Amino acid sequence: MADNILFEKTGSDDATQARCGGITTAHGYIDTPAFMPVGTQGTVKALTQEMLEGAGASIILGNTYHLYLRPGHLPINRLGGLHRFISWDRPILTDSGGFQVFSLTSLRKMSEAGVEFHSHIDGSTHFLSPETSIDIQTALGSDIVMVFDECTPFPASRDDSLKSLELTERWARRSKQRLCDLKSEPEIAQAAGISVVNPVQALFGINQGSTYLDLRERSLAGLVDIGFDGYAIGGLSVGEDKNAMFEVVSHIGPRMPGDRPRYLMGVGTPEDIIEAVALGIDMFDCVMPTRNARNGQLFTRRGKLNIKNSRYKEDSQPIDEDCRCAVCSRYSRAYVRHLYMSGEILGSVLSTLHNISFYLDMMGMMRQAIPLGTFNEFRNSFLSGLARGQD
Amino acid sequence: MADNILFEKTGSDDATQARCGGITTAHGYIDTPAFMPVGTQGTVKALTQEMLEGAGASIILGNTYHLYLRPGHLPINRLGGLHRFISWDRPILTDSGGFQVFSLTSLRKMSEAGVEFHSHIDGSTHFLSPETSIDIQTALGSDIVMVFDECTPFPASRDDSLKSLELTERWARRSKQRLCDLKSEPEIAQAAGISVVNPVQALFGINQGSTYLDLRERSLAGLVDIGFDGYAIGGLSVGEDKNAMFEVVSHIGPRMPGDRPRYLMGVGTPEDIIEAVALGIDMFDCVMPTRNARNGQLFTRRGKLNIKNSRYKEDSQPIDEDCRCAVCSRYSRAYVRHLYMSGEILGSVLSTLHNISFYLDMMGMMRQAIPLGTFNEFRNSFLSGLARGQD
Repeated sequence: MADNILFEKTGSDDATQARCGGITTAHGYIDTPAFMPVGTQGTVKALTQEMLEGAGASIILGNTYHLYLRPGHLPINRLGGLHRFISWDRPILTDSGGFQVFSLTSLRKMSEAGVEFHSHIDGSTHFLSPETSIDIQTALGSDIVMVFDECTPFPASRDDSLKSLELTERWARRSKQRLCDLKSEPEIAQAAGISVVNPVQALFGINQGSTYLDLRERSLAGLVDIGFDGYAIGGLSVGEDKNAMFEVVSHIGPRMPGDRPRYLMGVGTPEDIIEAVALGIDMFDCVMPTRNARNGQLFTRRGKLNIKNSRYKEDSQPIDEDCRCAVCSRYSRAYVRHLYMSGEILGSVLSTLHNISFYLDMMGMMRQAIPLGTFNEFRNSFLSGLARGQD
Repeated sequence: MADNILFEKTGSDDATQARCGGITTAHGYIDTPAFMPVGTQGTVKALTQEMLEGAGASIILGNTYHLYLRPGHLPINRLGGLHRFISWDRPILTDSGGFQVFSLTSLRKMSEAGVEFHSHIDGSTHFLSPETSIDIQTALGSDIVMVFDECTPFPASRDDSLKSLELTERWARRSKQRLCDLKSEPEIAQAAGISVVNPVQALFGINQGSTYLDLRERSLAGLVDIGFDGYAIGGLSVGEDKNAMFEVVSHIGPRMPGDRPRYLMGVGTPEDIIEAVALGIDMFDCVMPTRNARNGQLFTRRGKLNIKNSRYKEDSQPIDEDCRCAVCSRYSRAYVRHLYMSGEILGSVLSTLHNISFYLDMMGMMRQAIPLGTFNEFRNSFLSGLARGQD
């Protein structure tokens, strides 16, 4: 597989394994370390694309499972692909649908071929395999495609974890084969009823192996042998404790190919992300900033703030005094609290915009600090601010 | 009462009674005819203040009843008034709370003094009178204050309508007295626990009289005798048929003082507004563009469009081809439909922003046409476009 994205490392930290750089895609450049807001159903919940641009999002994530079920990948493909459908010109990464099939659906039938499952929307029966997942992602035209993997449940025995990572490896090979076929043989895309709207899609492999470090290594070796444009760590943030998670990340992160982007899937809190950047991770996604916003939990440089708290009823300060986002430059805690307490849509909009801005600003601070050699100073001072916790 | 707002008529139409002009307030100029988006709880539902500015809203409406109950007029007053609380620097009109007390609450006890009622939020008991309504509106600091009136229910006998309008007239006098007192005697405001955050609030009287034209005339004469900065027609759009409504507007509209703004409360459809402008009305408010948006009904220059309709599933056109709003310049019907069908917040945001833009653009077209002498041409062509109906 030819390189479909170019990763360049532009700086690194001496005291840690943190690095900064960027990824070139058909839809523009992604500065790393990068946080990808999650746009499950073709929308980062509550935000307009203009707001995401203004907040500095350089890439968003779309969910294959959700978009396949609604509105369907074929309508999106006929409309020119996901970028055009949602009117977003910057890069998009799509996941493979695997994680959602295993976490959102019931009555699954697993086989070597793939997974039969029932839609969480209407109960209808569907089948997802490496080939269909790649077909869907090609129809969507994302810039970064993820291989179809089995997200090993937690906890899993060593034996089950081994079987699972071996299946994931075979599926990764089939995923890569399918993407190559779609790109090189027009009749295959035609037979699948799709147009190749983005001919330079990159493909990332996904490392599994639960919390068994030797299995993680084995999985990584298998993926590197197949060869991908980037490598992701999957199967974490699924119920294991933090120590177990960081044991895996600190072991496998630095072993991932240094000339390719490293993506830690589904992580995490601001603290988790900072620690993972210190371990050499480049990309992150998490629903936490968006989901927590809709529940009234706001991130600030002095810890989390629960906007429901009555102490904010007459607080004319911005959500975060040190934040320069569009929300903090204009609106007060008292107003955001009132909107939240009144069940107003604008409460979700402003809370989400602030939280996403907080995450993106934090990534920007790390990207600045790493080449200046001040990453550890940033890390210590930012983490101690977060630990203050104002609730 | 000294003039607190300056109304100037800058143009009029020969063939109809349509007129254009503007109103100067402490928070800026309102071009008329004007539509006021309804910001019930201190937010025009689903829109940021930036979006309202971008769409060209020159004034919004706030609801005294809702803001009094939540978060309370005193907290808002302590935070500097409604403008500062919601971060909106342009004019605000507040209603008196009368309409909501009569339409949203149960277990009301009416007396000459005022109305005792139970909150629709928590059932707690409250009392609203001309004096307390004006106190609340002064605490909010709106630019245009409405007298506390009894919105005569429909249908009402001639006798009940007469009694109701006489009560409204006495309440109008008390409303004016209270506002004068608050402005001129600091100890009165102090005793009410409020600061006068906007010392140049204007006060509008409200015409009642149900569908009895002679009662409407009598009500108007009483109000003019008291003297207000502007005059509103109340008690319409409450269940009577269109003919009855326009009989009142066409009779009373042109009889309202020509040197003051004329405001038709709670109206209406685009068609209603155009017809009322032709009868000399200057100001409108209605929840229709915002509420219908959240139900998937979108206004276009070719009639209403129901975005739920499956025919839009793969429609790459903007909601309204002839619309240049922020939504139509970027997003497609297919995307807005997908957001609506998926229950996404962004569906409400984009639909509301389009509908509000549609209303505001329509007002702008009338303001352009009136001084050019092309109002009737605009009216005929716009109404025939609306009548096409695409559903």
